[in-house]
Amino acid sequence: MTLRVRFAETDQMGIAHHSSYVIWMEAARVEWLRERGLSYKALEESGVSLAVSSLRVDYRKSASFDDELELSVTLTALRSRHLTLTYEVKRSADGALVALGETDHIATDRSGKAVRIPSEWVTPLKAHVADPSTT
Amino acid sequence: MTLRVRFAETDQMGIAHHSSYVIWMEAARVEWLRERGLSYKALEESGVSLAVSSLRVDYRKSASFDDELELSVTLTALRSRHLTLTYEVKRSADGALVALGETDHIATDRSGKAVRIPSEWVTPLKAHVADPSTT
Amino acid sequence: MTLRVRFAETDQMGIAHHSSYVIWMEAARVEWLRERGLSYKALEESGVSLAVSSLRVDYRKSASFDDELELSVTLTALRSRHLTLTYEVKRSADGALVALGETDHIATDRSGKAVRIPSEWVTPLKAHVADPSTT
Amino acid sequence: MTLRVRFAETDQMGIAHHSSYVIWMEAARVEWLRERGLSYKALEESGVSLAVSSLRVDYRKSASFDDELELSVTLTALRSRHLTLTYEVKRSADGALVALGETDHIATDRSGKAVRIPSEWVTPLKAHVADPSTT
Repeated sequence: MTLRVRFAETDQMGIAHHSSYVIWMEAARVEWLRERGLSYKALEESGVSLAVSSLRVDYRKSASFDDELELSVTLTALRSRHLTLTYEVKRSADGALVALGETDHIATDRSGKAVRIPSEWVTPLKAHVADPSTT
Repeated sequence: MTLRVRFAETDQMGIAHHSSYVIWMEAARVEWLRERGLSYKALEESGVSLAVSSLRVDYRKSASFDDELELSVTLTALRSRHLTLTYEVKRSADGALVALGETDHIATDRSGKAVRIPSEWVTPLKAHVADPSTT
Repeated sequence: MTLRVRFAETDQMGIAHHSSYVIWMEAARVEWLRERGLSYKALEESGVSLAVSSLRVDYRKSASFDDELELSVTLTALRSRHLTLTYEVKRSADGALVALGETDHIATDRSGKAVRIPSEWVTPLKAHVADPSTT
Repeated sequence: MTLRVRFAETDQMGIAHHSSYVIWMEAARVEWLRERGLSYKALEESGVSLAVSSLRVDYRKSASFDDELELSVTLTALRSRHLTLTYEVKRSADGALVALGETDHIATDRSGKAVRIPSEWVTPLKAHVADPSTT
């Protein structure tokens, strides 16, 4: 997934604000799912969310306004109610590693209660766990 | 209502991004209602929203990180399904006028259909219309 | 310019927050300039900004998470230190008009003082003014 | 530091978006410094930034629109060029722990190069390291 740093995403240090990465990681997650035939919109409409239970970002280089960034996503763990994704943010121009991220998710119903990830999602996700030994 | 410009609200021009004002105006609107005994949260929970149907902002001076700003709100029009609010954003330090804003709202139900503003809101709002001749 | 509504851009009404449009209009403006050979990043690096002096948005329909939107930009006025752009936001799926916007800009130097739009920008911009009679 | 969840900070799950916490933690950091006589704005103006080098957030409970939240900040590590802060986000109404966070910072000059934290900052910060054994 490729995106450009928006002007609104910069701060007065002249670089992309660190909170912007969290939003980019979410956008990359939604695209990663779509490419695997999974619509996060449809999941939400069915009443299930993949709530973020924890978040980590390591910032390696800064990203500037108008930089084109490439985000790659890896599913590193999948359990009945949880999954973990990792992210790499690279600058398209020179391939520099800009940031690494990780998010843990818990499947929840509309009341926020933990539920099983729907079975129609588990099968395609299983095919994409990066290292099956970690599941 | 008083707030401080957050670092995340600045951009690489070194000033508050113009979209931040839209969010401040919304926060000021919610506080203005609260001070009049009206909980926007409760209105939403009852199934009614005051959707923004149009928005205008005039930027007069820039606001910088950590500036304390004072937002004042005026209800300038109130009809059965619509209302209009205007906003003044001033810098606390010197009273300088930073921006003027205006939002039009339409009361909607959860499906987005226009509905009447609930009667328990109309009475207190009526008492606060800036110029009754405009209603 | 085409974009998808990000999850972070929605609010609890279940639709894109009205402040998101302001950020999309900015992103569309930067792309519109790029397509005309004008790099807003390079302009900023040269010390000139096109500060937003006023903003108007009319919201016609709501946009939902994951909707693909098409933004079109028109330059409607161009003076020595000012320009005005208008925006149309349409939903790709059905072509529905979601919003109309307008921004006025003033060219400023790093201290925020009004300056002339650089001549190397004026010529290409002149070729794209929608209706020369309005300038 | 106390804040209220803004409507714009919610998402279509009806709760505060997970990226909002990152911005609140930053706002709390700036206030924590101010209470110790340290102006982050002045630091930036002197050419030194405390860039975020890594970020962690654990989400325990959701926060809703209009919830009043209390953020407490602890300085847990201080070195010549680095510092680490931790954060607790609690709901004022019932004291519930909403989230825990941690940010690592590196002092940088305007070019992004690591520099020493200015001596006039080190002394007051030293007095506030939570557990001197961790420095």
